[in-house]
Amino acid sequence: MGDAILSHRNHTRVRSVMSPALILSPQQDQNEVAENDPLYIASTLAARLAETAVARDQQGGHAAQEREWIRESGLLTLSVPTEFGGQGADWPTVYQVIRILAQADSALAHVFGFHHLQLAGIQLYGNAQQQRQLLQKTVEERLFWGNALNPLDRRTLATANEDGFLIDGIKSFSSGSVGSDWLTISAWDETSQSALIGVLPTAADGISVKADWDSFGQRQTDSGNVHFSKVQLPADLVLQAPSQVATPQATLRSQVAQLIMANLYLGIGLGAFDAATGYTRKQSRPWFASGVDKASTDPFIQHRYGELWLLLRPATVLADHAAGELEKAFRKGALVTARDRGELAIAVAEAKCLAHRAGIEVSSQMFELTGASSTSARYGFDRFWRNVRVHTLHDPIDYKLRDLGRYVLEGTLPEPTAYS
Amino acid sequence: MGDAILSHRNHTRVRSVMSPALILSPQQDQNEVAENDPLYIASTLAARLAETAVARDQQGGHAAQEREWIRESGLLTLSVPTEFGGQGADWPTVYQVIRILAQADSALAHVFGFHHLQLAGIQLYGNAQQQRQLLQKTVEERLFWGNALNPLDRRTLATANEDGFLIDGIKSFSSGSVGSDWLTISAWDETSQSALIGVLPTAADGISVKADWDSFGQRQTDSGNVHFSKVQLPADLVLQAPSQVATPQATLRSQVAQLIMANLYLGIGLGAFDAATGYTRKQSRPWFASGVDKASTDPFIQHRYGELWLLLRPATVLADHAAGELEKAFRKGALVTARDRGELAIAVAEAKCLAHRAGIEVSSQMFELTGASSTSARYGFDRFWRNVRVHTLHDPIDYKLRDLGRYVLEGTLPEPTAYS
Amino acid sequence: MGDAILSHRNHTRVRSVMSPALILSPQQDQNEVAENDPLYIASTLAARLAETAVARDQQGGHAAQEREWIRESGLLTLSVPTEFGGQGADWPTVYQVIRILAQADSALAHVFGFHHLQLAGIQLYGNAQQQRQLLQKTVEERLFWGNALNPLDRRTLATANEDGFLIDGIKSFSSGSVGSDWLTISAWDETSQSALIGVLPTAADGISVKADWDSFGQRQTDSGNVHFSKVQLPADLVLQAPSQVATPQATLRSQVAQLIMANLYLGIGLGAFDAATGYTRKQSRPWFASGVDKASTDPFIQHRYGELWLLLRPATVLADHAAGELEKAFRKGALVTARDRGELAIAVAEAKCLAHRAGIEVSSQMFELTGASSTSARYGFDRFWRNVRVHTLHDPIDYKLRDLGRYVLEGTLPEPTAYS
Amino acid sequence: MGDAILSHRNHTRVRSVMSPALILSPQQDQNEVAENDPLYIASTLAARLAETAVARDQQGGHAAQEREWIRESGLLTLSVPTEFGGQGADWPTVYQVIRILAQADSALAHVFGFHHLQLAGIQLYGNAQQQRQLLQKTVEERLFWGNALNPLDRRTLATANEDGFLIDGIKSFSSGSVGSDWLTISAWDETSQSALIGVLPTAADGISVKADWDSFGQRQTDSGNVHFSKVQLPADLVLQAPSQVATPQATLRSQVAQLIMANLYLGIGLGAFDAATGYTRKQSRPWFASGVDKASTDPFIQHRYGELWLLLRPATVLADHAAGELEKAFRKGALVTARDRGELAIAVAEAKCLAHRAGIEVSSQMFELTGASSTSARYGFDRFWRNVRVHTLHDPIDYKLRDLGRYVLEGTLPEPTAYS
Repeated sequence: MGDAILSHRNHTRVRSVMSPALILSPQQDQNEVAENDPLYIASTLAARLAETAVARDQQGGHAAQEREWIRESGLLTLSVPTEFGGQGADWPTVYQVIRILAQADSALAHVFGFHHLQLAGIQLYGNAQQQRQLLQKTVEERLFWGNALNPLDRRTLATANEDGFLIDGIKSFSSGSVGSDWLTISAWDETSQSALIGVLPTAADGISVKADWDSFGQRQTDSGNVHFSKVQLPADLVLQAPSQVATPQATLRSQVAQLIMANLYLGIGLGAFDAATGYTRKQSRPWFASGVDKASTDPFIQHRYGELWLLLRPATVLADHAAGELEKAFRKGALVTARDRGELAIAVAEAKCLAHRAGIEVSSQMFELTGASSTSARYGFDRFWRNVRVHTLHDPIDYKLRDLGRYVLEGTLPEPTAYS
Repeated sequence: MGDAILSHRNHTRVRSVMSPALILSPQQDQNEVAENDPLYIASTLAARLAETAVARDQQGGHAAQEREWIRESGLLTLSVPTEFGGQGADWPTVYQVIRILAQADSALAHVFGFHHLQLAGIQLYGNAQQQRQLLQKTVEERLFWGNALNPLDRRTLATANEDGFLIDGIKSFSSGSVGSDWLTISAWDETSQSALIGVLPTAADGISVKADWDSFGQRQTDSGNVHFSKVQLPADLVLQAPSQVATPQATLRSQVAQLIMANLYLGIGLGAFDAATGYTRKQSRPWFASGVDKASTDPFIQHRYGELWLLLRPATVLADHAAGELEKAFRKGALVTARDRGELAIAVAEAKCLAHRAGIEVSSQMFELTGASSTSARYGFDRFWRNVRVHTLHDPIDYKLRDLGRYVLEGTLPEPTAYS
Repeated sequence: MGDAILSHRNHTRVRSVMSPALILSPQQDQNEVAENDPLYIASTLAARLAETAVARDQQGGHAAQEREWIRESGLLTLSVPTEFGGQGADWPTVYQVIRILAQADSALAHVFGFHHLQLAGIQLYGNAQQQRQLLQKTVEERLFWGNALNPLDRRTLATANEDGFLIDGIKSFSSGSVGSDWLTISAWDETSQSALIGVLPTAADGISVKADWDSFGQRQTDSGNVHFSKVQLPADLVLQAPSQVATPQATLRSQVAQLIMANLYLGIGLGAFDAATGYTRKQSRPWFASGVDKASTDPFIQHRYGELWLLLRPATVLADHAAGELEKAFRKGALVTARDRGELAIAVAEAKCLAHRAGIEVSSQMFELTGASSTSARYGFDRFWRNVRVHTLHDPIDYKLRDLGRYVLEGTLPEPTAYS
Repeated sequence: MGDAILSHRNHTRVRSVMSPALILSPQQDQNEVAENDPLYIASTLAARLAETAVARDQQGGHAAQEREWIRESGLLTLSVPTEFGGQGADWPTVYQVIRILAQADSALAHVFGFHHLQLAGIQLYGNAQQQRQLLQKTVEERLFWGNALNPLDRRTLATANEDGFLIDGIKSFSSGSVGSDWLTISAWDETSQSALIGVLPTAADGISVKADWDSFGQRQTDSGNVHFSKVQLPADLVLQAPSQVATPQATLRSQVAQLIMANLYLGIGLGAFDAATGYTRKQSRPWFASGVDKASTDPFIQHRYGELWLLLRPATVLADHAAGELEKAFRKGALVTARDRGELAIAVAEAKCLAHRAGIEVSSQMFELTGASSTSARYGFDRFWRNVRVHTLHDPIDYKLRDLGRYVLEGTLPEPTAYS
């Protein structure tokens, strides 16, 4: 396992082993790594998470201790602009950190990524004052953000009142909600037949976060239900009012989210690949009919590794490319056009489809290369497939492929939705 | 789940729903089913196993109670010739029973299938007296047989003594060993550099069966280690002595085994397919961008089901074909030639490769068709992939494909081994 | 090439080489072959066609001489019931003959198959008198039938008059029209907004058959345009009048047609496979880095042949199965139900999808196994891909997959159309 | 066809349509294009070649006129360093030019690419004097170079004599030999059991270039046999003497060649994709059962275009990446290390495998998207598959995949050979 994770000691060595995956990433070519390099910090954190990842996957539930480690690493302020006290990292760096963490523990990488998604939302939707207050507060109070925004679940309703809105109902698939300090929420306004988006402290009166996530994968993502019972959402915490038409800038949020997913899938795929190559090299026995004395020199095994690599490698390169495009669009701010946004959505869709397939195929086919003994529960190698299988169901790949097809055939940009 | 399982009440209805999978099986076209029809009994048993299959998969370990149900069903004597008091069922029937059970619970189907593999071994290797004694005893004492024969594990040694052989060492991957009454064993004879095959009561002095199977799939197959400490194997329980050249008839055993696996993979695939169609029909929500009001009318979903069906359907037909060929070869007895045996091995290899892929792909891709909510642990749908993933690692598919390629290219028959 | 074709001399030997492909076909297991066995006659004819197939593919146009050979073989009466003087062969035999011819020359196999499609149409649509007259005439005058029925091309119009209908317009994709004696035609009746189906001598006044087929594949299928200029269709040659509701029996015609296509695709795939294995065995050089001294012992080449075989083998078995089902439905005559017909359509769709893919993949991938030298024009190996590529476009595979998906998901039978 | 080709008039518009394919190429984002931009010149030339590409593919043979157009375009000096009077373009530019030409006419793009391969060879193998003399001469006399170097064909022998070597024998697969001014040749020296590499004027005494290339694809590549009959190779035209150990720098030649191929495959794939989208948009009819009124809005067609795009897009990005890596290694000159060279070979192998598959799949599957009418010979759409099918057989993809697998599994760099 440890091979994938850049620990303090073997940082440089491991980088060179991993270099194929990361060859296009300029940051990876450095031989010298500063201790405050977020990738270095992420690698160290990943190594620490890896030690218990198999056990915690079995156990499920909330990883309180490990979330504290993430908080202590300082990486929660990574995407906060320097003007608000954050590290002002660019998106390519944020996504690489997510990917590094996902190689070790894709559930906590998910929670980490979604924290930054909420911060992106504040930057994309919020007014200047909201940005300043919420982001400064995030830095100062070391806040951990969670999500309660699932737009397809309209059971949470908003009713306007004097001070803002009263929020009532249930919201499912609320990743990172358990143990969060603040939440982004969405609620349906019947009057205008549209949704609002706002933020609230998780401890606000009437909010009850259920630790009821029970999927077979991404088990420690705390993605259960949040219940709202007459919760007051003050007007100044409304990021997007009902009926407010989303600007192209605002709709970048779904692209930030989609690319988080792509990098999570990819991180899982890279983690599985690394686990498989390590096992084949060190533990697999050659097949008796192969005529070779090491599994790693079996021509069929070499060939299959070549095939799997050709799934991971393009996904990595396209994910990095999309991250660069997202960075450009994000920095354009209010000047981003519908076309900019649409072309970004295409770049992200390409990366996400490739990462989806790479993740699924590598995590399922890796066993053809490691053999029956590698299925022992003590290795926990099935978690890669379970994690990526669950998470790739966020939104259907067939509609992404359709969006891509429409674009290359007729130039139609994807409609801005919460998923495209 | 229940749809796949032919319960007493809905037997006829369900058969017609399932007919595509089984359309080539003459037995399936009958509207009337006798209560003593093994397929009917198997369906009833499968329905019973299905009720707790998800919970028992979580739990792992030994399914003592459920193995008693199998014993009580009478199906343990299915493959025993009528002259020894058995039911004398043909191999196509035995394989269909295995497939039906595997749709509900592939771990117990495995244990059941391997019981019949041991009985086949006695018929293929044993002399007339051994056959009579062991098979009659099996019927009379309702014995459940287990396996301790893994030929790639040479840690169990045989030393000739006056009364036969002294057996010492460890044997891994001993499916069905826990809770068995008798075992088939193999042991390595250093003197002749060859293996013997014999049978022993599991309770024999010096045999210790470990309940230490810990794979992430096929969890209740009791496939752990068996320890032998100075165990006396009497001469009359030796089925194949060291150095004894295996006849073509004797080498049919590996084909019986390989086709058990093919039917287990297929049963898992059919079970997963059935679970998926049921979920899509009854629970999946249409994707918001699809423009349809039921998931089952989404063109992409229909198309994918068509694709998955084209994996299962050929695998089913070829498995049935191979079962018919095996039946012919088995009945030829000592007259079976190396060519008969080789052509059978090709038919079995075709079926096994197709079943391998159908099982893996259907159990992994089914989720694209059911969506994120279907990953809740309460459905346990991940067990299909975990089960087939573990079991398909029995021997590498690449060497099966090579065997097929050799044959179609140059007419070379597969070498008779424990795996081909 | 010759290996695939059963010539007089090496009939028995070749059968055994080909046996994997045909192992489920009982006819193939005989060691003795009568000279009047249609499969024997087909094999002899195929061997003769094979000698010039490459040259005639280059040349395109009408194969007048070769069509005479087909006529002389007597195979044009194969599907005519014995009561009308024909050979009364069952559909499995007719389809096997088509497949054997297609291995050598898929264009002439197409023309041959479509001749029998017209005869099937007469049996399915025609009244007793039409059947007797037309089928007897076919036998007595050794007629060769062509097709002018493309239902998607509505440019040919029918106007009722005293003696039947006046036919005017153009009909495209009229396979086998050039050089035919009689044609089945369809024409659009504006009044009733429906199509009629009838038959006419190709030499009838006003019919002009254009030899203008110019596709890059299936080049000698004579599939060009037929022009109708005030052609009188007498009432007694109308097989199906406008507005006449098609019975389930009548709609079997599209299944006869679809299964002809499946067998053509499969024949092409088998012919390509045979050409490839022959080349690999006799001419391919081992790759310098392979470490082996014969291409046929290269593990990657063996493995790929195994893979391609697993495309052809299931397609063959399912095509044979569908032929048996078609035979049953055809013999039921007017008693065939909509459900019978629908289930047959599923069996045919399964076979056609598998044959489509087997044909396309084998004819394209075969070159990975034979190498650059095998692309010399003197072998003409590209014709396999060109032929199957053109012919598989008859109707889109995606809608067949959707039909299959609908059925397995909800039990919906395919709508009876000219394509399903 | 014209859509893919950037003609003078619609240059900017077309670029934006093509942008998905080229989105990572900084050169493509400019709105302003200088008339002396090689990409602009290539686009203009490609448009001119496209007008007759279908006819010339039918006809085969030598494209004397069109090769003059290439010469007149000035692009033959593209890769010649400026110090020798050339344009000193970097490799990414050279490869993009090859790709643009290949979209229109992959045979002439091949001849063009191989001309630059010979120039690369001179730079990599030649001493300073050879470089100056040969490259200056190339510019001054507007030379067109051909290849006669096939290292697997050892029928051409070299015998040392006073003035250098006497060359005798035959060399196959000599791309661009017909109509060339100079040739790179290799010959086998029996004494040292190794090959020499040299250059000669095609008109040298004893050289006879045969116009005997007869493959079904890449028909105008002039890739036939060259006969040498007592040809004197002067010592100063020997680039690499027998037994001379190739430096890492020298072995870059095979990487230059492999990446030419990758870009040819990719150009063919992009050309096919462009032909397909154009046809679907303008000519395809919607399928009658689709319920849509334009083929381009059929969900299955959109989905398939998305799939094909996901083959082309990664291949493009990885080819561009490998070109950048090649540029770096090439510029390092004699300082390039075995590791540099090996890592470059991995980058090139990744690109080549992806381009191989993208080319084969897009050119074969495009017809599922355009339909039967698109197979008319007047469109010549089958040439895409024929061209890429023939060219991808240059060296087996399975050994590239093995090389990739070896590297990712154990870090083994590919052995420097003429193919890896």
